Amino acid sequence: MRRFLEEDVLHYLDAQERFESLRLETIQKVGRQFCDLAYANPYDGPIPQAVNAMRTALEAQNRLNLQYTPYGGNTITRRLVAQHLGKSHRLNFHWRQIVLTPGSMAALNLVFRSMSRKSYRSKVVVITPCWFDYPLYLANLGLEPVFVPLCRDTMRLDLEAIREALDDQVQGIILSQPANPTGLIYHADELRQLARILDESPTRPVLVSDECHRGILLEPEAFCSPAEFYDNTCIVYSFGKSLQIQGQRIGYVAVSPRMERADHYAHIMERLCRIMGFCTPTALMQIAIRELLDETPDLERIRQRRDLILGELRKAGYEVQTNQATFFMYPRAPETDDFHFASMLAREGVLVVPSTLFHHPGHFRISLTCNDDMLNRALPIFRRVLAGCCS
Amino acid sequence: MRRFLEEDVLHYLDAQERFESLRLETIQKVGRQFCDLAYANPYDGPIPQAVNAMRTALEAQNRLNLQYTPYGGNTITRRLVAQHLGKSHRLNFHWRQIVLTPGSMAALNLVFRSMSRKSYRSKVVVITPCWFDYPLYLANLGLEPVFVPLCRDTMRLDLEAIREALDDQVQGIILSQPANPTGLIYHADELRQLARILDESPTRPVLVSDECHRGILLEPEAFCSPAEFYDNTCIVYSFGKSLQIQGQRIGYVAVSPRMERADHYAHIMERLCRIMGFCTPTALMQIAIRELLDETPDLERIRQRRDLILGELRKAGYEVQTNQATFFMYPRAPETDDFHFASMLAREGVLVVPSTLFHHPGHFRISLTCNDDMLNRALPIFRRVLAGCCS
Repeated sequence: MRRFLEEDVLHYLDAQERFESLRLETIQKVGRQFCDLAYANPYDGPIPQAVNAMRTALEAQNRLNLQYTPYGGNTITRRLVAQHLGKSHRLNFHWRQIVLTPGSMAALNLVFRSMSRKSYRSKVVVITPCWFDYPLYLANLGLEPVFVPLCRDTMRLDLEAIREALDDQVQGIILSQPANPTGLIYHADELRQLARILDESPTRPVLVSDECHRGILLEPEAFCSPAEFYDNTCIVYSFGKSLQIQGQRIGYVAVSPRMERADHYAHIMERLCRIMGFCTPTALMQIAIRELLDETPDLERIRQRRDLILGELRKAGYEVQTNQATFFMYPRAPETDDFHFASMLAREGVLVVPSTLFHHPGHFRISLTCNDDMLNRALPIFRRVLAGCCS
Repeated sequence: MRRFLEEDVLHYLDAQERFESLRLETIQKVGRQFCDLAYANPYDGPIPQAVNAMRTALEAQNRLNLQYTPYGGNTITRRLVAQHLGKSHRLNFHWRQIVLTPGSMAALNLVFRSMSRKSYRSKVVVITPCWFDYPLYLANLGLEPVFVPLCRDTMRLDLEAIREALDDQVQGIILSQPANPTGLIYHADELRQLARILDESPTRPVLVSDECHRGILLEPEAFCSPAEFYDNTCIVYSFGKSLQIQGQRIGYVAVSPRMERADHYAHIMERLCRIMGFCTPTALMQIAIRELLDETPDLERIRQRRDLILGELRKAGYEVQTNQATFFMYPRAPETDDFHFASMLAREGVLVVPSTLFHHPGHFRISLTCNDDMLNRALPIFRRVLAGCCS
């Protein structure tokens, strides 16, 4: 292994690989009693509109439908996304500023690659807790992640700490809005202040706003994008979450039309689709999503489930904020070692993600995408394991 | 632009971007008279079995069907590919040695990434003419391509030149079998000698056998894979060509079971799917191809078309070898400047790929995937333009 991968890359794989072992052990041990509250695989299946749109796209008669599309994607689809985003973000996107990618993993890598410099090691500020793989991608691309945690109690942006991190090597900063794993939505005020700090920083870094969970807003009026406040912003999106088809690999980078030389930057993104080998999302999905831009899962059902779990967890004694968006909630682990606490739950058949995987200590993440059976089995186990810890 | 991409990467984009401009100009100028003999987009559409299998996969009832699959791909599909390849290649592949990727572009990047070393600049020998983007990927990953052309007249491997190129910095060597753009199939004897040279070289580099056109064999008995002769081989494959669904992005890397620590190397490939952000092919396609492993386009039709074009080109005075495989033929350009000759054809509405794009001078590539109308319009133009050159 050491023959092929560098130490820093391996370092960021370590916790995930340990967790994957825990997952496999748990499945093996508990079998059908397994409660998967870890990943956002929707056990109730995709939203029906998604399957319908894929069916329609497949039956379409154009013979070149399943063939190569240009780097950056099909122009009609890009136009529709630009229009859609124009409305939701109050920004006048040109279709060329939307670069379709095979999922957000590719989109993130395009943007990060644009931050790397051959001549010196650039840095990217990563707000933590963050999605698993940001630091892994950065390390692989020769970029140094600089972790800045949220405020400990409020889980809001620590603006002072961010300001301190912004030196003249910082080429980028990344956060998720709504935030994964906390499930919170950053306020307009927080983002406005962040924009001011970035504008005054030595490099005016590219802000990457990972908006993959924008389709799952339990308090829709609370959402605003950092792109509304800071010009030098790229939005990363994936359709997999909202449509509950995470295996279908389609998303995009949207370059803010207010970015200096936005078209030039977007053209670099198109070229990177070729240079890095990501190519495009499948031709089928590029057609299917045209019909799906406004679709979301059944939010009422998710809200009910959230309220039920929150109530039960709090009654049991867990400390947890109300998630305003996403499928996730992020309780504090009753033990300092979050991995150990997750292992205790796993021993009883309940899999949650320890916050070490989000590069942040002392919490765990629960996903609401399980089915009812799993949930009913899991709730008493949460109670029992916490009681065991405290006794 | 210079702000974001390095000179060597831009260098390898240049000819392609010039050609893309020529393509767009040509379409604009000739409109419906456009004859696309450049790219392998099959104007007669996908093979019907492919659409059927996609339909069946979409209607399947498992609710997790469109969700995440493990890095490396769905195990059942990997097993089926391993069995299939075991028969065709007379090698006993384990399913873990098959790593499914979103197309061959991703597969190539995984293998190339495994060759890069932080501590020094490694080299990869590239047999030319080669597919457009090998050197682009290598440059982006910090690897130095070392071009070794085929023998000028026979278009066979120049074994002596390869031997000379193999110094102690060479980590890999890449060729395509069957060869794109020449359409030739390397003989077992050539490959056996190549294996001996590689075995005796200072580094025993990884041989990448790009077998994307293995489904289009016009002389099936002539095919053999380099993996049969050299242990340190990775096979790269894409289903897009055979099934004529190039936009559906599914392929694989197969690590030869005879490679030293093959399982370890394959596991690195799986991890690179995560580390580099390629993830997996779509869940839908991973299911669909299970039914499609033996499917090919109508080879009899391609053979007839090849014979017709070959006859006409030779009658007109072009020098061209008989392609034994692939959708391509590779005539010598009657002018030293292949790009200029392609521009002359383009002015008349016929688009072919000048060999500069294959990192090789003095030829052009014709694709047989056009429709009959295009072909009928193109043949007299080939005659006329050659006559104009020689007059």
